[in-house]
Amino acid sequence: MASQEVPKTCKVILADTIAKKLLAEVTDTLSSVQISGSKPTLVAFLANDDPAAGQYAEWSKKTCEEHGFNFDLRKVDKESLEEAIVAANHDDSVDGILVYYPIWTNNQQQDRYIQETVALSKDVEGLCHTHLFNMYHNIRFLDPPTNLKKSILPCTPLAIVKALEHLQIYNPILAYGNRLFGKTITVINRSEVNGRPLAALLANDGATVYSVDITGVQLFTRGSGIRAPRHQVHDKEGWGLKDVLPLSDVVIGGVPTEGFKVPTELIRDGAVCINFSSYRNFDGPAVKEKASIYVPSVGKVTIAVLLRNLVRLIANRPRPEGISDAAEKARAEAFKDV
Amino acid sequence: MASQEVPKTCKVILADTIAKKLLAEVTDTLSSVQISGSKPTLVAFLANDDPAAGQYAEWSKKTCEEHGFNFDLRKVDKESLEEAIVAANHDDSVDGILVYYPIWTNNQQQDRYIQETVALSKDVEGLCHTHLFNMYHNIRFLDPPTNLKKSILPCTPLAIVKALEHLQIYNPILAYGNRLFGKTITVINRSEVNGRPLAALLANDGATVYSVDITGVQLFTRGSGIRAPRHQVHDKEGWGLKDVLPLSDVVIGGVPTEGFKVPTELIRDGAVCINFSSYRNFDGPAVKEKASIYVPSVGKVTIAVLLRNLVRLIANRPRPEGISDAAEKARAEAFKDV
Repeated sequence: MASQEVPKTCKVILADTIAKKLLAEVTDTLSSVQISGSKPTLVAFLANDDPAAGQYAEWSKKTCEEHGFNFDLRKVDKESLEEAIVAANHDDSVDGILVYYPIWTNNQQQDRYIQETVALSKDVEGLCHTHLFNMYHNIRFLDPPTNLKKSILPCTPLAIVKALEHLQIYNPILAYGNRLFGKTITVINRSEVNGRPLAALLANDGATVYSVDITGVQLFTRGSGIRAPRHQVHDKEGWGLKDVLPLSDVVIGGVPTEGFKVPTELIRDGAVCINFSSYRNFDGPAVKEKASIYVPSVGKVTIAVLLRNLVRLIANRPRPEGISDAAEKARAEAFKDV
Repeated sequence: MASQEVPKTCKVILADTIAKKLLAEVTDTLSSVQISGSKPTLVAFLANDDPAAGQYAEWSKKTCEEHGFNFDLRKVDKESLEEAIVAANHDDSVDGILVYYPIWTNNQQQDRYIQETVALSKDVEGLCHTHLFNMYHNIRFLDPPTNLKKSILPCTPLAIVKALEHLQIYNPILAYGNRLFGKTITVINRSEVNGRPLAALLANDGATVYSVDITGVQLFTRGSGIRAPRHQVHDKEGWGLKDVLPLSDVVIGGVPTEGFKVPTELIRDGAVCINFSSYRNFDGPAVKEKASIYVPSVGKVTIAVLLRNLVRLIANRPRPEGISDAAEKARAEAFKDV
């Protein structure tokens, strides 16, 4: 409701604020699903020399250790990576495995092969085919129709979904699964690990999503009147940012280059702007004059989601001997909201 | 987040659901601001023979009596109405006064004169000039800079604001006063008691509002980038429903004729649709296939807001003798969120 003094610039929400809430939930859930008191162990393979990956690994280590997890960073060369992953797959003391990509910068197929090498039960990043297939088909469980083991969603797209929930863009008064119905969202980036899964997740929840990359614009929706069970994709020939930004309630930038900036003058007054690139895709001072909410980065949310996925993998394991019914129930209900 | 089974039609929210929440708050606040145990009295003057007014009076009486208020319906003829209002203004046993309009159907000025005859301190409908001026200028208090006595907002527009808050269209993560920033809303009706104040309230909270009546479209905003302290109005020459409905997140119908229907095919997929006419402005079955949320009527919310305004009038009175500091504090804080 109206008042006389209202802020004249937008609300800036830092990743830290969103991450804190998620991490508290992770800690609670871990304590309810843990069998023994031993710390879960996340193994991370670093096989490239990307400084961004090194930085991200450092933050991950810090967050893990602060929240009751072991973080075991293993630097390996490209050639021994596959063997190292297989060994970790078979090692009972390893609860989750992640790999820093890209590894073979000129051979995406080889990176894809590595993603598939990680065991499904330790795939904390949700990049194995079964996890990806479930995500694209809007299937939430690994074991239908029992529906006790939840499918893993990739970390950065899920981090952005969690950010949008925190920002109340998901309307909780609508039915679960339709909570973005009526929202128009532009995602700038259509990579296989970030932009395309993100567009699919948002469309699966009812949004009209414009997915933009250098090749053009694709429209992801659940169809007219939201009747389809999962998203459909249509090419929008000849469309560009100039067509989609003025229509968008939410603009999500994830272009991994320093030079790219979302043209502020095309953004609709009061839009929500989120950057997930490690570069700044938005002109900060200008976007604060135009947006209603601005999230400059989501890296810390991604790390929180990584731990959330790890706890979910633990909850997904076959029922161990000697576990109480209460603990088994807690495992089935872990993070039931996604 | 995604699931496999999601509803294929929109969520219908009944006025009753919204009213119940408001009435609970009214009862609580009344008990904290009341000086003696005596029931507050609302006097309603019926000087026309409109069956809709008679029906509304009956509902109001029932709601009043269920929630600890007296409802005193006084049927008077047009000629003695002014005198009857003046007498009620001076009667200490009367806490609030409302009048059913229209009275002189062919002389709006005379109705307007009657609105001004009701004492400001008993104007439960917020139709006195001081209340209207404050609303249009986005001023919330009657006693700046002390700011203890809140200005009264007209019942139907405030009922719709309360409905939009319930539906989470007001985003609580944004600063108070900017919580509609980024939303586009069409209001079909620009009467002086309903549509125009509603458009102003919504624009004062940051929305882009298209106000539509048979004379055309006006745009109500707080200006580009939400920098103005209150709404500005611009004529949109040549515009009509065909231009504004496809842009609108929320469509509010208030056309008081049986024949009018909002053209469903122009409504954006996933829009929120609210009817405040006593006729059905939306084609129910069709709109349920297109909207995300549909509110078929708001009459019961309006009655709840009427009682809310009455309690606020009681809280606004000069500090009585013998009142405790706690009760005085409760009076200052009554309904602090609007």
